[in-house]
Amino acid sequence: MRGAVLHAPRDVRVERRDDPKITEPGDAIIRLAATCICGSDLWPYRGIEPVNEPSPIGHEYAGVVEEVGADVTAIRPGQFVIGSFFASDNTCPVCRAGYQTSCLHRQPIGALGAQAEYLRVPLADGTLVATPGVPDDDLVPSLLAASDVLGTGWFGAVAAEAGPGKTVAVVGDGAVGLLAVLAARQLGAERIIAMSRHEPRQQLAREFGAADIVTERGDDGVARIKDLTGGLGAHSVIEAVGTQESMMQAIRSARPGGHVGFVGVSHGVELPGEELFRSHVHLHGGPAPVRRFLPDLIGLIWDRTVNPGVVFDQELPLDQAAEGYRAMDERRAIKTLLRP
Amino acid sequence: MRGAVLHAPRDVRVERRDDPKITEPGDAIIRLAATCICGSDLWPYRGIEPVNEPSPIGHEYAGVVEEVGADVTAIRPGQFVIGSFFASDNTCPVCRAGYQTSCLHRQPIGALGAQAEYLRVPLADGTLVATPGVPDDDLVPSLLAASDVLGTGWFGAVAAEAGPGKTVAVVGDGAVGLLAVLAARQLGAERIIAMSRHEPRQQLAREFGAADIVTERGDDGVARIKDLTGGLGAHSVIEAVGTQESMMQAIRSARPGGHVGFVGVSHGVELPGEELFRSHVHLHGGPAPVRRFLPDLIGLIWDRTVNPGVVFDQELPLDQAAEGYRAMDERRAIKTLLRP
Repeated sequence: MRGAVLHAPRDVRVERRDDPKITEPGDAIIRLAATCICGSDLWPYRGIEPVNEPSPIGHEYAGVVEEVGADVTAIRPGQFVIGSFFASDNTCPVCRAGYQTSCLHRQPIGALGAQAEYLRVPLADGTLVATPGVPDDDLVPSLLAASDVLGTGWFGAVAAEAGPGKTVAVVGDGAVGLLAVLAARQLGAERIIAMSRHEPRQQLAREFGAADIVTERGDDGVARIKDLTGGLGAHSVIEAVGTQESMMQAIRSARPGGHVGFVGVSHGVELPGEELFRSHVHLHGGPAPVRRFLPDLIGLIWDRTVNPGVVFDQELPLDQAAEGYRAMDERRAIKTLLRP
Repeated sequence: MRGAVLHAPRDVRVERRDDPKITEPGDAIIRLAATCICGSDLWPYRGIEPVNEPSPIGHEYAGVVEEVGADVTAIRPGQFVIGSFFASDNTCPVCRAGYQTSCLHRQPIGALGAQAEYLRVPLADGTLVATPGVPDDDLVPSLLAASDVLGTGWFGAVAAEAGPGKTVAVVGDGAVGLLAVLAARQLGAERIIAMSRHEPRQQLAREFGAADIVTERGDDGVARIKDLTGGLGAHSVIEAVGTQESMMQAIRSARPGGHVGFVGVSHGVELPGEELFRSHVHLHGGPAPVRRFLPDLIGLIWDRTVNPGVVFDQELPLDQAAEGYRAMDERRAIKTLLRP
């Protein structure tokens, strides 16, 4: 089959790779209908995470089950399925508590390389969720979004306790931040403030339910959020970047007793204990346990309540993955869908 | 009147100070029945917080109202009252959300010096809570404990979401940590693990409801907590020290999805973002909004459900405050009550 391989920073090649095979009795093999490039793929692409050897890449996937291992009982060949970026058994105490990305038996999908024609998914019964039937073509991008960005934005909103009566601020206007706006809306937030300085992203944020746009960053952004919230700060803040600046912007934008949900993969962040202590905020986040939300998210997409697939503003054949990486790196694209 | 003044590190003197007077119409003057030395008073006592000039000290108080300002309506002379270490109006949006220590009009009591015969309490209507009547003498230490250490331990337990079905670990065996054990018990925790290496404190922890004692610290302490919780970590961890080591011990002792309530006043703490991200813990804490809990705590003490006053293992006349500081500094005393 053909699949994307990251050889070195800024060197992604689609090349021939071995077809994946069932290696464990809990595995499933999926023929991918669509895959995509994640903001977090840009960390190694930019060399901020080291690339020590040519590595398959990609962890977002939706497609049709081709084959299952002997122990797989819930998933059947022919089903259209979606999974998350960690395979999880969904039965251990950590999974049962809703933290499937910390599953005691989790396996990272990224190492298997989902930007490809086929993917082996371990722990298939725990990891994969089937759609009610074969989806219409136009639903595929949204179902793919549920695999990571929608689920991650959703977890950010849940971690920030977005809901009725709440003013929610979103730091970060990547696909996750934008879908966090959508999630906060679905969770019933009273008012959503998106922090973005990019016109097309602002427009999408408004489309997803943001009432206000704040273009300032850092302390100026915090001051603007305070202005918009009677001097208090937002009840809920979703952090969807992962840098020191964005984390501090998020914490300082929340009111005392407010909730910060952080889902941007942390890079080089050090949180000052004294300030956190004085801030009185609640802090919760991490790798989104997308599996917790997948059944509900698939339902919302299936009945066309939400249309998260619009975050894909570029669609390319898998063979042109390198151009997709360049477009996202240069912020010419919000998110690039790849068709195997 | 006589009151304690911190002149320099390790130099506390009880000396003549001006009698406090009503200076704002919302003030009350209290004749203190009892006051005490807080673990947080040891930070400036030890010179870890700077002492720039002779400063009145002390922020825990219970006593009888002598006089009230023109605007005070809820509190009357003759009432026995308890307040917290920040005066708060209890009406602003932050107070109404239960974060009275971040009240928009808060005033620190410590600056007024509660280790004294009399104390001026600003925002008396919002700050003070009266007991149902004149307390029996033996209740006074427990009512005084409600002013800070009990309320702070209680907030730690609430922030850590201690409750039925939960295994709760407590980092820190000072008065706050010990009373966090009591709070977790009252909140219905299934199992409480106290981390302490001091025999008399272990005994008190057991008395308050701890089933297990862990004497190890740091990584060894974390390993012990994991051993005791099927490898997962505690559901709830209360941090009652405020150092880098104790914060990391608390975060690492919690299971994914667990809750850390941190109430030890942070000193020099830097939390690594990546580890926090991966840990999947909830983090909440800060200066305890004791006022939120005071009515309930007074009720539990009044009907003798709880006896937090036993944390006072030393009682001295106010004039011997210096000896009280020495005893707490040298860990000869858990907590020292001062009788004006």
